[in-house]
Amino acid sequence: MSSVEFMKRVNNLYRFSALLGHLGWDQKTFMPAKGAESRGEMMAWLAAERHSRLCDPEFGNLLSELEANDMDNDLASNVKEMRRQYNQAVKLPSDFVSQFTRARSDALIIWEQARAKSDFSLFSSHLKTLISLTRQKIEYLGVQDTPYDVLLDDYEMGMTVADYDPLFVGLKSRLVPLLQEITNSEVKLPKLPKEMLFSANEQEEFCLRVSRNMGFDFEAGRMDQSTHPFCAGIWPGDTRITTRFDEKDPFSCLYAVMHESGHGLYEQGLPKEHSFSPRGQSVSLGIHESQSRLWENQIGRTTAFWRIALPWFKEEFPDFPDWDAKTVDLLVNEVKPDYIRVEADEVTYNLHIMLRYEMEKLIFNQELSVEKIPETWNQMFEDWFGIEVDKDSNGCLQDIHWSMGAFGYFPTYTLGNLYAAQLLETMSKQLGDIDTLVESGNWSGIQVWLRENIHQKGSQSSATELIEEITGAAPSPEPFLNYVENKYRRLYKL
Amino acid sequence: MSSVEFMKRVNNLYRFSALLGHLGWDQKTFMPAKGAESRGEMMAWLAAERHSRLCDPEFGNLLSELEANDMDNDLASNVKEMRRQYNQAVKLPSDFVSQFTRARSDALIIWEQARAKSDFSLFSSHLKTLISLTRQKIEYLGVQDTPYDVLLDDYEMGMTVADYDPLFVGLKSRLVPLLQEITNSEVKLPKLPKEMLFSANEQEEFCLRVSRNMGFDFEAGRMDQSTHPFCAGIWPGDTRITTRFDEKDPFSCLYAVMHESGHGLYEQGLPKEHSFSPRGQSVSLGIHESQSRLWENQIGRTTAFWRIALPWFKEEFPDFPDWDAKTVDLLVNEVKPDYIRVEADEVTYNLHIMLRYEMEKLIFNQELSVEKIPETWNQMFEDWFGIEVDKDSNGCLQDIHWSMGAFGYFPTYTLGNLYAAQLLETMSKQLGDIDTLVESGNWSGIQVWLRENIHQKGSQSSATELIEEITGAAPSPEPFLNYVENKYRRLYKL
Repeated sequence: MSSVEFMKRVNNLYRFSALLGHLGWDQKTFMPAKGAESRGEMMAWLAAERHSRLCDPEFGNLLSELEANDMDNDLASNVKEMRRQYNQAVKLPSDFVSQFTRARSDALIIWEQARAKSDFSLFSSHLKTLISLTRQKIEYLGVQDTPYDVLLDDYEMGMTVADYDPLFVGLKSRLVPLLQEITNSEVKLPKLPKEMLFSANEQEEFCLRVSRNMGFDFEAGRMDQSTHPFCAGIWPGDTRITTRFDEKDPFSCLYAVMHESGHGLYEQGLPKEHSFSPRGQSVSLGIHESQSRLWENQIGRTTAFWRIALPWFKEEFPDFPDWDAKTVDLLVNEVKPDYIRVEADEVTYNLHIMLRYEMEKLIFNQELSVEKIPETWNQMFEDWFGIEVDKDSNGCLQDIHWSMGAFGYFPTYTLGNLYAAQLLETMSKQLGDIDTLVESGNWSGIQVWLRENIHQKGSQSSATELIEEITGAAPSPEPFLNYVENKYRRLYKL
Repeated sequence: MSSVEFMKRVNNLYRFSALLGHLGWDQKTFMPAKGAESRGEMMAWLAAERHSRLCDPEFGNLLSELEANDMDNDLASNVKEMRRQYNQAVKLPSDFVSQFTRARSDALIIWEQARAKSDFSLFSSHLKTLISLTRQKIEYLGVQDTPYDVLLDDYEMGMTVADYDPLFVGLKSRLVPLLQEITNSEVKLPKLPKEMLFSANEQEEFCLRVSRNMGFDFEAGRMDQSTHPFCAGIWPGDTRITTRFDEKDPFSCLYAVMHESGHGLYEQGLPKEHSFSPRGQSVSLGIHESQSRLWENQIGRTTAFWRIALPWFKEEFPDFPDWDAKTVDLLVNEVKPDYIRVEADEVTYNLHIMLRYEMEKLIFNQELSVEKIPETWNQMFEDWFGIEVDKDSNGCLQDIHWSMGAFGYFPTYTLGNLYAAQLLETMSKQLGDIDTLVESGNWSGIQVWLRENIHQKGSQSSATELIEEITGAAPSPEPFLNYVENKYRRLYKL
């Protein structure tokens, strides 16, 4: 019966994580300002509770006992992941875990203020603390080939600098020339009427309609506002996404909602019988991101999508210019080097990620000092994008990740883009032309395909295995590069 | 150092309670319907975790060790309350606690549906379960003089049927004749224009203004919507109140907000240095209710209040009839026997409570069967109020309490009314005429008086001790009866 006791303990560990997820959602949506301190304490306490239970020697004994015997696949997958977590956790002192959680929670508040004022100096001491705690964590866990590898592996198992370096170099070598061609293209893009305002209420109606049509179940989830859109897959029956409204640009909200709904569908489709255990979680951050990017870009930013969605949009905004789907598609696919990652087009997006990857490599493998982060960022940005960064909120203060101590997270976004393109290729082989499906307005075929091939499987396989199982090929950047080159050559008549 | 270890454990127990409070708030405000099952499981798990830690024999040893030595007052007050909880908890099996929490969570959902459809039969099996679990709990804890006493004592320590019976009889003997006089009075009350609608947005603006003027700190709290208004004093810096909007009646929302803000001020004023321990909690439910009723009725339902608030109200609703403060005061103080407790005036309110008290006494001391609850309720209501109950949602389905297993809770509402009147007498002796203060629009004197005399003290004293310390007299129904007789004789020119 050690497997029963083991699963009971695993479920409890995941309940602590789920509570942290719930409190994290509330922290970013509804928490009043003065609740920040108690929130930080509470989350630090929960993290420490989880950690001390994970490190319990009896839990270690259970793992060894189970490993010595035959196990069914589900149990084996839980044991494997918990062994990984256990081996890591026992290297980290409980006080350290609690201190780190607390520091993250404190930094989040300050980062928000610093970003609002575009003043890096407000944030720098918190960032210094987080970086130094992260360095300490790397030391506790034990350096692999390079210190940064420890972080990369934490967010996408098996991935290191040795994997990412050639990947990014390869992407850059084809994306930069493409960007050059596009910049020189003479295609004239439509522009949103400058004076037109799109009220938040109507944007919300429209976005909810799109999200519902994607299959997001609002009886088992909800949508709220936050500074930065995110998805919290709290627990079975309760998945929450957020967005934000820009009254001058309705598409910013739309694509945030499609992105987060893509994540949300994954969470809603996970196998409930394995909830509160590794086996019932998503495979990896990269696979998760593939689900959001597929809906956001490969379905959402197409003429086919706008053939269906434009009438819905016009219902909310009857004064919108009388453009056809193709024109709107051009509008939402404008390629333009700019400051903000989350607003970036599909061509420049991965360059944004690569920049962050190079920054983090400098910080953890070359000991770049915190003081030098803004100027290093700005210099690199100017070299790559040809634009001078005017303020830190358009530069190194723009992303939430570092304030959450999430160093090594960004590269999984690029993996998501690559996986999405590779999955789409296979999906279209199996379901027929995707544009035709999207244009039909009935997207349940797509949703079911994703659910059956990915969501329902939980973390049965690793990311690499899953991609191979579905597509018959190892993960590769080729499908993405082909997709992006074809798409933009067509749009920009290159 | 056993006191350090003791306080650490106490803090952790209260963290579990606080998490339950947070999840409970979310459950009643934002949770999607399909999240109910997981929510129930999660809350049951948290309750069981708390319970098993409370029952830990080592915790019992710590208590005994501390009790054998001298303690400062704060520690003594924590030890006393934890001893009470410990002695209770060790009598309850962990499975039972978890089962009860789960049953409550399940019943809440069904009760909401039953109430919406006004169909008692939907709810009766859940109610039966809760009553039978409560009977089991009484048995575990050990019957005192009567089984119901166990429940009464749980919600207001030291109070039993032997205390409440004469109290309610005394109240009834003076309230019923007063009600009779009022019913025969010839004073004509103003009526809200039937066709006028009060939009929720404007109601919210007005209510927020009143709440802010009461001193509720919205940087350390927030206000949302729920079917039933409530206040969740989650933890330091984060106190949340809720309300609901009736577009035909703006006063229903106003007095809900004043009521919950009164509770909220108590929570916001508790001593932070004692948070997550009994010493830092409110004294009792009765004292808590005195804080809400004082603001709602004794401040809010006065001509003085409307002298200040009517201009604010007219800013939001310029089409409101051109009445003076005295007229609006009459309107919001209409005495009228009616079905719904939470909408009741100050004269009939305590009769509603007494009815519930008598019902619960029948259920737990006379074994009244669940099937007979509606007809017994309806008969008693008709006898006392002279009105036939038309549907169960206007009768025994109206209150949330039973669906939460909170039997024995209602009588604390009457205590709150009595305490509030007694406190107001003393306050006016010390601060001068309260109407003059209210009319000045500067309510900080009142807020500071409540904070210093009650909120800041946490649970330093028991409810009875606190009332004696502040007013110099034991708790008594006289101040309330005098207040209510004077007020309504004046309003109705009796």
